Amino acid sequence: MSISEAVVMNGGNGPYSYEQNSSYQKGVAAAAMDMIKEALPTTLDLYHLPLSSPNPIIRIADFGCSTGLTPIQAIETIVQCLLDLIKPIKEPRFRTLEFQAIFSDLPTNDFNTLFTNHLPVRRCYYAMAAPGSFHGRLLPTASLHFAYSSCALHWLSRVPQEILDKSSRAWNGERIYYVNSPAGVVGAYSAQFGRDMEMFLSARAEEMVSEGLIFMVVPGEPDLVHDSQTTLGSELELLGSCLVDMANEGIISKAKVESFNLPIYFPSEKELKQVISRNEFFHIERIQTLSHLKMHVAFPTPESRSLCLRVALEGLLCHHFGNELIIDDLFHRYSLKVAKSLFFLKPESHESISFSV
Amino acid sequence: MSISEAVVMNGGNGPYSYEQNSSYQKGVAAAAMDMIKEALPTTLDLYHLPLSSPNPIIRIADFGCSTGLTPIQAIETIVQCLLDLIKPIKEPRFRTLEFQAIFSDLPTNDFNTLFTNHLPVRRCYYAMAAPGSFHGRLLPTASLHFAYSSCALHWLSRVPQEILDKSSRAWNGERIYYVNSPAGVVGAYSAQFGRDMEMFLSARAEEMVSEGLIFMVVPGEPDLVHDSQTTLGSELELLGSCLVDMANEGIISKAKVESFNLPIYFPSEKELKQVISRNEFFHIERIQTLSHLKMHVAFPTPESRSLCLRVALEGLLCHHFGNELIIDDLFHRYSLKVAKSLFFLKPESHESISFSV
Repeated sequence: MSISEAVVMNGGNGPYSYEQNSSYQKGVAAAAMDMIKEALPTTLDLYHLPLSSPNPIIRIADFGCSTGLTPIQAIETIVQCLLDLIKPIKEPRFRTLEFQAIFSDLPTNDFNTLFTNHLPVRRCYYAMAAPGSFHGRLLPTASLHFAYSSCALHWLSRVPQEILDKSSRAWNGERIYYVNSPAGVVGAYSAQFGRDMEMFLSARAEEMVSEGLIFMVVPGEPDLVHDSQTTLGSELELLGSCLVDMANEGIISKAKVESFNLPIYFPSEKELKQVISRNEFFHIERIQTLSHLKMHVAFPTPESRSLCLRVALEGLLCHHFGNELIIDDLFHRYSLKVAKSLFFLKPESHESISFSV
Repeated sequence: MSISEAVVMNGGNGPYSYEQNSSYQKGVAAAAMDMIKEALPTTLDLYHLPLSSPNPIIRIADFGCSTGLTPIQAIETIVQCLLDLIKPIKEPRFRTLEFQAIFSDLPTNDFNTLFTNHLPVRRCYYAMAAPGSFHGRLLPTASLHFAYSSCALHWLSRVPQEILDKSSRAWNGERIYYVNSPAGVVGAYSAQFGRDMEMFLSARAEEMVSEGLIFMVVPGEPDLVHDSQTTLGSELELLGSCLVDMANEGIISKAKVESFNLPIYFPSEKELKQVISRNEFFHIERIQTLSHLKMHVAFPTPESRSLCLRVALEGLLCHHFGNELIIDDLFHRYSLKVAKSLFFLKPESHESISFSV
C-alpha cells in the first residue's frame, strides 16, 4: 500500500467510521449544495453544453467522494438542479436526456458501504464508481460535464520530499505539520499543493467537455493568517505533540515520528486564486467563503473532536507506524489535550472556512 | 436486504472467500477467453461499430463480474484482442481510440477487494464499477459495445413463486431445488429462466450500440438429460438433504426448509437457443460447449468441493435461515455426504458443461 492509498476515510459504519463521524463535512456539503443551487442557473450554459448525439447524456462526477450519504445527496442535488433548468427547454435533444453519476475516490475507499447502504434503488441517473487518484486521469476524453469535489483537494498526493531530508533547509524535524515550522517547510507544502492542483485541473481539462463546470469546496485559511500560524492546523500540531510525547515515553520510535508528516494543506483564498489562475484550462467564475457549521458546534466534546480526526487519519497513521502505534492511546491523549486547548476553550478564535470555486 | 442482494459470492480473500475457492470458475473463464480470442476476429465488424465522435471510445462490460482476478483477466483479454484487431486499421478515428471497462454486479458484491487487490495501476483502459442487477438497466442508452458475462446468468432474479405455494401443482415441499421434483417445479424454474434472460437481453439491447456483441458463458446441462434429473443439480439436491437432516434433528425449522429454494437454473443447449431466439434484439452468432477443467479436477477433495458451494451460497443461506442456521455444521455434513456420493466417486458420470454464445 502506498501513502496515497492510506489516505482514505475509515470505511464501514461502526463507531470509528467516517460515516458516523463526519457531521462537520456534512455541514460543509449542505452549505455547498445551497451554493450550487444558487450558482448553477447563472454559470452553466445548457444551450452550449456539448451533448453526445443521438443519445444525449450529462455526466457528473464527485472526486474524492468517500462514503456515506453525503456524496449521494450531492449528486442528487446537482441532478435535481439540472432537471429544473432543463424543464422549460423545448429543444428535442433535452427530451431523451440521461444522467450518469460517477463516484470517484482511491481504490481503497469503501465503495461497498456506499453502494449497499446509501445508493437509492430508484434513481433517475446511472451510477458508477471510478477508482483511482484524482491527480491523474480517471475518465475518457471529453466525457464529463460537471465535476464536483468537496473537502478532498486539501489532501496532497504526497508529503513534500524536502521536508523529510535532514540536510534540507525545509527539514521538519519531529513536527508532523507546517504549523510553527520554518518558512522552508511552509513553502514546500504550498508548492506541493500548487503542483497537485495543477495535476487535478490538467486531468479534468482532458476529461471534461469544453463548456464543463468544476465546483470545488476547499477547506482553507483566512488570508490574514500568517503562513506558519494556521488556525485549522493547530489541531494537527496538537496531534503531533501527542506523538512526540509517546516517542519520549519510548512507546513509538523517534525516527518514525521524524519521518511522519501529514499530506494536508489548507490554502488561503488568495493562494487558491493564484493556483487556479496559473492553469491554462479553467478560469474562476466565482469564489466565496462558505457559511457552515463551525467545528466546535459539529463536535462539541473533546472526544467527538478527537474522533473526527481519527476517522480521517487512522489509515495514514497505521500505514506509517504499523503495529508500533497504539491508536487508542494516541487519540485518548489527544482528547485530553484538546479539552485544555485554546481552540476548544475559545472556539471563536478558531477559524475554519471553506472556499467554493 | 432482498434475496437478490444476498446472491453474491463471498467477498474478501479469506478461507471462505470466492476468490480463494473459484478454481472451477477460473478454468471456465480461461476456456472462455480462448474462445473469445478465436471468435472475436470473425464476429466483430470493427468498421461498422458505431463509435462516438470526436472522441471514440469502446466500452466493455462484465455483467456479474464478482471479485478476484478473473474479471480483470477477462477484460484485459478482450481489450488485447481488440487492440490486435485495430492495429492494422489505418482509419484516423482508431488512432485516438480509448477503452472503458465496466465491472458490474449487485451492490453487495465486494468491489473493494476487486479495486484494491486486483485492478492494475497501469492499464490501457478506464475502469468503472456499475452496481445493480443485470436484469435491469445499468448503463446509458447505446453506450456499450461489448458485453461479457461468465457463470452468472444461471442465477435467477428470484425463486419462481408458485413452487412456494402449498396449493400449487408446482409446490416443491422440502426440496430446495428442481432435481427429482414434480414436472410443475421444473417448468416453473425453466419459465423463470426464460423471463430472466428476456429481461437481461432487453436491458442490454437498450444499452448496446447497434453492432454490439454479447459473449455469455452459461453453465448448463447436456440436451440428453431429462429435465428433472440434472447432473449438476445433484450437488444441490445433496445440500438440500443436509438441510432436511438438520430440520429432522430440530436444529433448524422445517417451515424454513420448505420455504427455501435455490434461484439457480441450468438450461440445456436446446433451451438456451430457444430462449435467445425468442428475443427480438439479438441473434446467435455461434454457440458451443466449452472444454474446461471438470469439477472433480478443480475440487479433488470432499472438503474443497464443499467449500466451492459454500462461497457461492453462504450469503443466500444466511439471509434465509438467519442465526438459526449453523453454516459450519451444514457444510461439514455436506462434505461427509459428498465423499460417499456417486458424482464424487464416479466423476465421469457427472457432466458439468458451459455454453458459450
